[in-house]
Amino acid sequence: MKIPYRTYLTEEEIPKQWYNIRADMPEQPAPLLNPGTLKPLTAEDLYPVFCEELANQEMDATTRYIDIPEEVLEYYKTFRPSPLIRAYNLEKALDTPARIYFKFEGNNTSGSHKLNAAAAMAYYAKAQGLTSLTTETGAGQWGTALAMACAYFGLDLTVYMVKVSYEQKPFRKAVIETYGGKIIPSPSDTTEVGRAILKEDPNTGGSLGCAISEAIELSLKDDKCRYALGSVMNQVLLHQSVIGLESKAAMEKLGEYPDIVIGCAGGGSNLGGLMAPFMQDKLTGKANPRIIAVEPASCPSLTRGKYAYDFCDTGKVTPLAKMYTLGSEFIPSANHAGGLRYHGMSPALSKLYHDGYMEATSVEQTKVFESAVLFSKLEQILPAPESAHAIHSAVEEALKCKESGEAKTILFGLTGTGYFDMHAYMQYNDGTMTDYIPTDEDLQRGFDKLPKVE
Amino acid sequence: MKIPYRTYLTEEEIPKQWYNIRADMPEQPAPLLNPGTLKPLTAEDLYPVFCEELANQEMDATTRYIDIPEEVLEYYKTFRPSPLIRAYNLEKALDTPARIYFKFEGNNTSGSHKLNAAAAMAYYAKAQGLTSLTTETGAGQWGTALAMACAYFGLDLTVYMVKVSYEQKPFRKAVIETYGGKIIPSPSDTTEVGRAILKEDPNTGGSLGCAISEAIELSLKDDKCRYALGSVMNQVLLHQSVIGLESKAAMEKLGEYPDIVIGCAGGGSNLGGLMAPFMQDKLTGKANPRIIAVEPASCPSLTRGKYAYDFCDTGKVTPLAKMYTLGSEFIPSANHAGGLRYHGMSPALSKLYHDGYMEATSVEQTKVFESAVLFSKLEQILPAPESAHAIHSAVEEALKCKESGEAKTILFGLTGTGYFDMHAYMQYNDGTMTDYIPTDEDLQRGFDKLPKVE
Repeated sequence: MKIPYRTYLTEEEIPKQWYNIRADMPEQPAPLLNPGTLKPLTAEDLYPVFCEELANQEMDATTRYIDIPEEVLEYYKTFRPSPLIRAYNLEKALDTPARIYFKFEGNNTSGSHKLNAAAAMAYYAKAQGLTSLTTETGAGQWGTALAMACAYFGLDLTVYMVKVSYEQKPFRKAVIETYGGKIIPSPSDTTEVGRAILKEDPNTGGSLGCAISEAIELSLKDDKCRYALGSVMNQVLLHQSVIGLESKAAMEKLGEYPDIVIGCAGGGSNLGGLMAPFMQDKLTGKANPRIIAVEPASCPSLTRGKYAYDFCDTGKVTPLAKMYTLGSEFIPSANHAGGLRYHGMSPALSKLYHDGYMEATSVEQTKVFESAVLFSKLEQILPAPESAHAIHSAVEEALKCKESGEAKTILFGLTGTGYFDMHAYMQYNDGTMTDYIPTDEDLQRGFDKLPKVE
Repeated sequence: MKIPYRTYLTEEEIPKQWYNIRADMPEQPAPLLNPGTLKPLTAEDLYPVFCEELANQEMDATTRYIDIPEEVLEYYKTFRPSPLIRAYNLEKALDTPARIYFKFEGNNTSGSHKLNAAAAMAYYAKAQGLTSLTTETGAGQWGTALAMACAYFGLDLTVYMVKVSYEQKPFRKAVIETYGGKIIPSPSDTTEVGRAILKEDPNTGGSLGCAISEAIELSLKDDKCRYALGSVMNQVLLHQSVIGLESKAAMEKLGEYPDIVIGCAGGGSNLGGLMAPFMQDKLTGKANPRIIAVEPASCPSLTRGKYAYDFCDTGKVTPLAKMYTLGSEFIPSANHAGGLRYHGMSPALSKLYHDGYMEATSVEQTKVFESAVLFSKLEQILPAPESAHAIHSAVEEALKCKESGEAKTILFGLTGTGYFDMHAYMQYNDGTMTDYIPTDEDLQRGFDKLPKVE
């Protein structure tokens, strides 16, 4: 059989259930803690911030498969299934015996995989009788995704957008507004947290951690409003598992199974979803693929962070999560072009990494864009800077195969397109893009401010 | 059978041949004329400007099906087949008995159907041993498409970009540059034609017609360079027939056939391709679908133009073509946001319209954007302003069905996405978008300057 460039499942083959990785983890991630009492949180504790159903999913470590609501499945059909693509042209150019596949989640107007989780969050909010959601967005994909899902399910939305992105991406902002979302650059003077941060540094470009604090503060003020988070949380990994489940089903049709699974990692939403069923195979002894997280050298939480309890936000209004972190006050250099600017990492993913089930690597952004441009020309898709981290790592692994002569099967996540990241490509094209790698001293300053737990 | 949201043909089902509508036309479009001698041109006359194979295709009115070269078919697989989508959400919101389908050509990095023709042009140029191509671009889709195809086939590219687009769309420019294309805002001082136009009006926003003149002038100066045109020409309609052939094959699988086929029309590339096999059925008496061209009220060549010989460009360096035209010096109001800014219309399409095989209608841009935003929210795809003309007409036809109770099948072309047109959406969102409809006197000024041919 000649394997096609693009393999699509049928609509009927879209997974009917999400997969909950925690059900197969030999050891659970450490529980979320109340920062005041340091006691583990219950689902009920989260109800003021998250929809009840989502809070329940957040705490559910035992249900292996959770039904995708019919309404969410219908919505998924407006942009799923996404294609599994064989990167024939890349393979040929690299002259590698490796077979390279990528799961392309960017063929929707949000431009990324974020719509998978946004769908669930908007649906559950509507089902609970809420009228609005609020969230943060960095590079803009998550804000766009949630705006699209809110427009579809009929909810209002307020987005706190990291100021540096707000200024670099007027058109990303325009998409969110076209879908009816209201955007506030963060830090802003609309919240106590924002005002405090602005007072300390009026010129800050903002961070995801800070925008999260502001959105949560807003949600707590309005009983018909809840907060939605696009990464890090267990619920997000759950909803994003549709990526991996589809990938695995499509590969099975082709008689393939990945030796290596590669995903970019900021908060973990994409990699957590892509790897889900492959990690399951690993945890249950059915297979042993390598799973690689790729992060930016400018924000290296897995590769250089501490595995410790920390706040999920800069304003320290969230619960404490045990995760790989650079410290909640760490703000990546403004010269970093893409997303993946988050100080922490999904606690579940952190735990799996800590226990040796995953690898992690980091890359400088100029190298990432080199691979992005190569890929653009060969595979004719201009990738998001975030996704290009995974491309870069896939290229490296394919070149290793060339050296060793091994015909490995590589699967990576092409999480999105770079159409709203052209300012970054412009920097790369005109040679003004630079790299930033924090020194050990830079990182130590972040570690020194980690909360003391035990 | 429940018809899915998205129907994809398999890669093996991508058409292996393009369809040449002229082979089935009872009367041929009038021949291209040498503007000096007013004698019909031969293919050889076009060789200095176009690749030989493309010049031959341009003049070939009899070969019904032309094989798609193997290399072009391979390239097509990087972005085709494109989906045929059932607009279930739009149908429901309009409460119409009509079944609405759209062929979505925007899921590639060029953002539109233009890649279908760019593929052929870059391939034939490479096969002829040329080293570069040159072209014009308005809204930017064509320039991006040709840059992508040139990067894939290994050719240099110079793009004359209509100045108003160049200024409004820095990010579109960045995509073209990422693919290695060189961009010059038009009119420019790099050509005699450009210098003449600038002298007359230094502040002009430019036009497609002017950018065409400049690109042709450049191609004539370099024997290893040829010109490529993204619309209007017979060769473009030929290459774009893949849209219609795929649409028809997909609809056949669903047991459907359109009662109405709708496409936006600037130069005719999309509508000419989408309608091709349906127009064939009409010309050969097999079926009788309505075929509707939708153009902007600000540039109404079919609905208010003259059917006459005219230059294809502002600089009057091209052959004369008999077509619906507003006069080659007509430059649409700069307040018009989208593409479709061309003064003329494909001669083949013009002839079919003149002979009563097609209908045409025009729409003001604020109405177009109203439909675009409605569609964005319901179908979760943010359309290009050009494509939104077709959406608007499809909505109107679906509402007529609601009134009459007829369950008609409507097919429209969603030629592309609006991700690089957000400045226009911003105008619409903040209420500053205005409409412009030329007066009869405005149009008369263009008609007065039509060349005198018999």
